[in-house]
Amino acid sequence: MLMASFEILAQDKDSQARSGVISTPHGKIHTPAFAPVGSQGTVKALTHALVKEVGAQLILVNAYHLFLRPGLEIISQLGGIHKFISWPKPILSDSGGFQIYSLSPLARVHDEGVAFASHLDGTKFFLTPEEVINIQITLGSDIIMPLDHFTPYPSSYEQTKSATFRTSSWAEKSRHYFQTHQKTNQLLFGICQGGTYWDLRQKSLEDLTKLDFDGYALGGLGLGEPKSLFFEIVEKSTSLLPPDKPRYLMGIGYLEDIFEAVARGVDLFDCVLPTRNARNGTLFTSTGKLSIKNAKYMKDERPIDENCSCYTCQHFSRAYLRHLFERNEITSAILNTIHNLHFYLDIFRKIRQSIHSNSFKKLKEDFLKRRIKDNQNDAN
Amino acid sequence: MLMASFEILAQDKDSQARSGVISTPHGKIHTPAFAPVGSQGTVKALTHALVKEVGAQLILVNAYHLFLRPGLEIISQLGGIHKFISWPKPILSDSGGFQIYSLSPLARVHDEGVAFASHLDGTKFFLTPEEVINIQITLGSDIIMPLDHFTPYPSSYEQTKSATFRTSSWAEKSRHYFQTHQKTNQLLFGICQGGTYWDLRQKSLEDLTKLDFDGYALGGLGLGEPKSLFFEIVEKSTSLLPPDKPRYLMGIGYLEDIFEAVARGVDLFDCVLPTRNARNGTLFTSTGKLSIKNAKYMKDERPIDENCSCYTCQHFSRAYLRHLFERNEITSAILNTIHNLHFYLDIFRKIRQSIHSNSFKKLKEDFLKRRIKDNQNDAN
Repeated sequence: MLMASFEILAQDKDSQARSGVISTPHGKIHTPAFAPVGSQGTVKALTHALVKEVGAQLILVNAYHLFLRPGLEIISQLGGIHKFISWPKPILSDSGGFQIYSLSPLARVHDEGVAFASHLDGTKFFLTPEEVINIQITLGSDIIMPLDHFTPYPSSYEQTKSATFRTSSWAEKSRHYFQTHQKTNQLLFGICQGGTYWDLRQKSLEDLTKLDFDGYALGGLGLGEPKSLFFEIVEKSTSLLPPDKPRYLMGIGYLEDIFEAVARGVDLFDCVLPTRNARNGTLFTSTGKLSIKNAKYMKDERPIDENCSCYTCQHFSRAYLRHLFERNEITSAILNTIHNLHFYLDIFRKIRQSIHSNSFKKLKEDFLKRRIKDNQNDAN
Repeated sequence: MLMASFEILAQDKDSQARSGVISTPHGKIHTPAFAPVGSQGTVKALTHALVKEVGAQLILVNAYHLFLRPGLEIISQLGGIHKFISWPKPILSDSGGFQIYSLSPLARVHDEGVAFASHLDGTKFFLTPEEVINIQITLGSDIIMPLDHFTPYPSSYEQTKSATFRTSSWAEKSRHYFQTHQKTNQLLFGICQGGTYWDLRQKSLEDLTKLDFDGYALGGLGLGEPKSLFFEIVEKSTSLLPPDKPRYLMGIGYLEDIFEAVARGVDLFDCVLPTRNARNGTLFTSTGKLSIKNAKYMKDERPIDENCSCYTCQHFSRAYLRHLFERNEITSAILNTIHNLHFYLDIFRKIRQSIHSNSFKKLKEDFLKRRIKDNQNDAN
């Protein structure tokens, strides 16, 4: 008999926020959790030692990228994804559907799967939902995401409907393939689609929950739809999802949205935002964000954030970080990424603590209050 | 009374190799020592924590680069170079003469100093030897290098002679300015020139040693002259230098040359070779060097060097490092730089130990034997 892969340890009294533990073959993930993105098997500009140091519990890799290069054969021969990249903690692999649609201009979706040309060298591939599961079983990911079909925002009802139905049909095939081929205790999540049409979302949620996945992801959101609609869909969706399974809001990275989604019962997040912003010199602070290239930091002796305990803030001034950014030094990307990821993961630590101590509402309100101010003023 | 800034602790019986300690305002440097290059105030692709972890005792910064950007005013206001870059250990600053001549196409050398245009924005500057010392006093470097005039190889006797005489005259001005303006216990080294003309080298050594510097650098070498001539000049030069002062062979980074120079009494080295090679994917091993992009490493489970104890070799396979390099990941530059610098600094640790235990000759012979083999075969 399998152990339950998700256990809820605390439930907020003022909202749907909850804190729990996802058990995976490579260890536990305390939720709400944030997965730093390491598409190619590395979080950009960090060593794994630094990724651990800033407090990551898991990382996200991209099955599409790894399937293309270095390829499954090499990763298998090297002992699977954990051994190949030498990261011993949980790994969530994204199917890469999003990347197939967005990076391959020739991608064509059929009921049987996706035809596409590699964005690297044009080689043509046809991937079925079963093959996408097989890739991730072979990688040895702890959390596997099936192939889905999302539509951009806005899309017509008919387009969205057909993509939603296809996603359900692929989910069923994926579930079946996984059940008959799974190794160890890998977890398979289902991905709900339906765009911004609530009846389609509802249909997707019904189809998916029937298949009894280990967790449920909300896909196709954060694509430009109005914020109120986004929150409404998240809220209504989580209310229809089984409470005892983890919920994953894919690709959402604005902290405001994360707080709102946690309040609506979301457990897991991933986004390139903190790492990509770091490389572009946009740094997060408890009173707002700042652009380190700004001339006003030229002589600024202060750390990025006086309240931050990361390596970067403990050692380096804004003046030095600006200098490194302006000189295009690789060290700039490293130090900025350390800070931004630490900042994100620290907020998740605080969110988890606050749910356990029934103070999530206050944490969220304090945070959003500062952020509303921040929208008018850059951090000083 | 000032403490002696250099103390010799062991003298090799079979060669001129010696091991000692240079005392600087920011700590001791055990020699023979290697200074990783951090021209802009950072060793490229590493954090200072990693630079310390791989065993660096000091770093080299470039006064020319820092003078142009961020400029002396900012560094002064931030408390000097150590505080600005947050590196508490010794810092050697290169005058940047080499960079002025090589990066500024409009550089003109006069007896009074150098006229040049910034390679960044074309701003025109005129720097006297005194100003170059003043820049480094202001930076607060532990070891200061005066402005010198080197000639490329080959250069005519007349050209070299005039540059050598000018270097001596600048050395005198530098020494005088330093003596009257020095703060704390900064050390000032003299730089000997003379190209490949022994009588000019001899003249330069005589002029310089009369000025009683805290240490002596050999400049203008490793510019393409025959290896035998290079070794001959190093050997004859060190024999004329006061034994109780440290000797610095500027910009020389091939390990074969380093071993030969240590055997001829050189104490200090710097070079971009290990860090630049790392970023280009050329990695050093105890049996030779390897180019990590080579397809033969695609499935290679072994670390770069099975005998290496660095973070990279303790965790990552050649296959993974090749993957990161091919994907152009910043992490590739980080992991490769950790390895190459650790490899270099480990050899310097072994050199120091061997001098203390009278086994330098054996260490050198073993190393060179492996390297001769290596010239025929890449590491396997």
